[in-house]
Amino acid sequence: MIPAESPSRSAPGAFVVVDWGSSSFRGWMMAADGAALAESRGGEGMLHCAGNGDGGFAPVLRDHLARLGAPEGAPVLICGMAGARQGWAEAPYIRTPTRLDALHEGAIRIDTPGDIRILPGIAQAHADRPDVMRGEETQLLGVTEPDFSGLVCIPGTHSKWVGIEDGRIVEFSTYMTGELFSTIAEHSILAHAVEAAGAAPTDSQPFQEGLSTALAEPTALTVSLFRLRAAQLLGFEQRADGAARLSGLLIGTELADARRRHGPLRSVRLIAAGALGRLYEAALVGQGLDVTTVDAEQASRRGLAKAALAIWRARAAT
Amino acid sequence: MIPAESPSRSAPGAFVVVDWGSSSFRGWMMAADGAALAESRGGEGMLHCAGNGDGGFAPVLRDHLARLGAPEGAPVLICGMAGARQGWAEAPYIRTPTRLDALHEGAIRIDTPGDIRILPGIAQAHADRPDVMRGEETQLLGVTEPDFSGLVCIPGTHSKWVGIEDGRIVEFSTYMTGELFSTIAEHSILAHAVEAAGAAPTDSQPFQEGLSTALAEPTALTVSLFRLRAAQLLGFEQRADGAARLSGLLIGTELADARRRHGPLRSVRLIAAGALGRLYEAALVGQGLDVTTVDAEQASRRGLAKAALAIWRARAAT
Repeated sequence: MIPAESPSRSAPGAFVVVDWGSSSFRGWMMAADGAALAESRGGEGMLHCAGNGDGGFAPVLRDHLARLGAPEGAPVLICGMAGARQGWAEAPYIRTPTRLDALHEGAIRIDTPGDIRILPGIAQAHADRPDVMRGEETQLLGVTEPDFSGLVCIPGTHSKWVGIEDGRIVEFSTYMTGELFSTIAEHSILAHAVEAAGAAPTDSQPFQEGLSTALAEPTALTVSLFRLRAAQLLGFEQRADGAARLSGLLIGTELADARRRHGPLRSVRLIAAGALGRLYEAALVGQGLDVTTVDAEQASRRGLAKAALAIWRARAAT
Repeated sequence: MIPAESPSRSAPGAFVVVDWGSSSFRGWMMAADGAALAESRGGEGMLHCAGNGDGGFAPVLRDHLARLGAPEGAPVLICGMAGARQGWAEAPYIRTPTRLDALHEGAIRIDTPGDIRILPGIAQAHADRPDVMRGEETQLLGVTEPDFSGLVCIPGTHSKWVGIEDGRIVEFSTYMTGELFSTIAEHSILAHAVEAAGAAPTDSQPFQEGLSTALAEPTALTVSLFRLRAAQLLGFEQRADGAARLSGLLIGTELADARRRHGPLRSVRLIAAGALGRLYEAALVGQGLDVTTVDAEQASRRGLAKAALAIWRARAAT
């Protein structure tokens, strides 16, 4: 997807890209042609750095640049929560509708030696459907062609369903699916009914049943949650099945609402990885959808590379 | 509702009733005719007592009996979580469909000197709609005539909607509305968007808007939750409005599903108190329903008295 205009992989033209989320740092040293040369990752996310005061972000980046063997003065492009108000520096939201390939124009430059920039998030600034993303826009850039039209699903803590028309984000919705899973599993009465959140739910019968229940009764989530507990009290189900059923209920509710919102769905691009990706794939395919799955990390790296090449190639050309 | 067959309020025939919930104890000294003579309340709920080992329940009851001035050997009838598996002694669930005025037949007797009994909970033991209640059945007995048919709503941590036909509970559903409110407000990203859970949400514009949103899009709860936060990030709403909006979203979702489940609703009995009761009243009346509200504590006491009179009058007659 990234054109290899220059065969050189040496320092000239090389750059660094970073996906800096709430709780993780993932950086890559990139050749001038956009190929990844080295990777460095750690748990120093935005929350960790913001907790260290203003000096929290720069030293973390410096350490990772050293680990990546980045040449002195290599430009750095960052996406994600490092650009939030409570992050390193705020990269104000771009508003929908907006072209994905214009994302780089909203990047802010950090007031520091060298060239360090942060990509903006995207806001749906309508009072009747306010929504925001920060990080996912870069993944979207990574997995779409300039003229792409269609629907993209990005499961996670805050799942996104994004409608794109001819390369422009026109509408999106965030489902609190992943966060509700962990909040309910850890802090509600369902803590007695769901095994440690660490255990990834599998594509099992309780998952499929949870999915079916939610798709059949998508307004009944808050009843179905209590019934998960009641089923165990009454001996219909085991605690070992709780996580998979909870997962099915929440994902099914998300799917049912996305179906309502976007009309009859035919195909969807899924940006995901691991066990969660497999659950969504199973659920979407089960609904008769054509699913194209792209690895979430690859999507971030590709989107960052596209934006970085747009920024620094444009600069080199002037 | 309780016939005053005996004008005497002295010790003979007097009894004690207790609503013993998860986190509270409320006891009343009752005259032989079912009139309340004295009250004693405290925070020694089932969770507190169970944490004290097997000896946790009897001493708490003894203290309250002393405070109530209960005569030596006065019989005691208890309802609520004290009868759960993890309570004082398990009073096994009676299964639906079941007559409310037969509730007392399922009471268990504690193996201790004196006559201390615990009323059973009610289970809907169907694999496709498992549900349980413990405590609410006694409130239902308190607010219904023997031939009552209709719908009763009992808001709270675990809100109940109960269909009653000719004095029999035929179907019920538990909504995790109250528990989701506190879990989400305290442990999710909405903690930044909702003020301390102590503040009772009022019948305000954000409540009404949350209600309308949920009634219009009852499958969209997990989206609307995130949008509550997004609305504040984008400056459409203030943090002070968060609790009322969250409350509106959750109650509206409950109402929309109850409407779907029970068909066109005309009237409902509401067992509730305080600020929560006023919110539900406003929401139900706003939906064009005739609402009869009964105070929750009065409902418990009346139900306990009815069951106690059925037990000990029957015994006296044999």
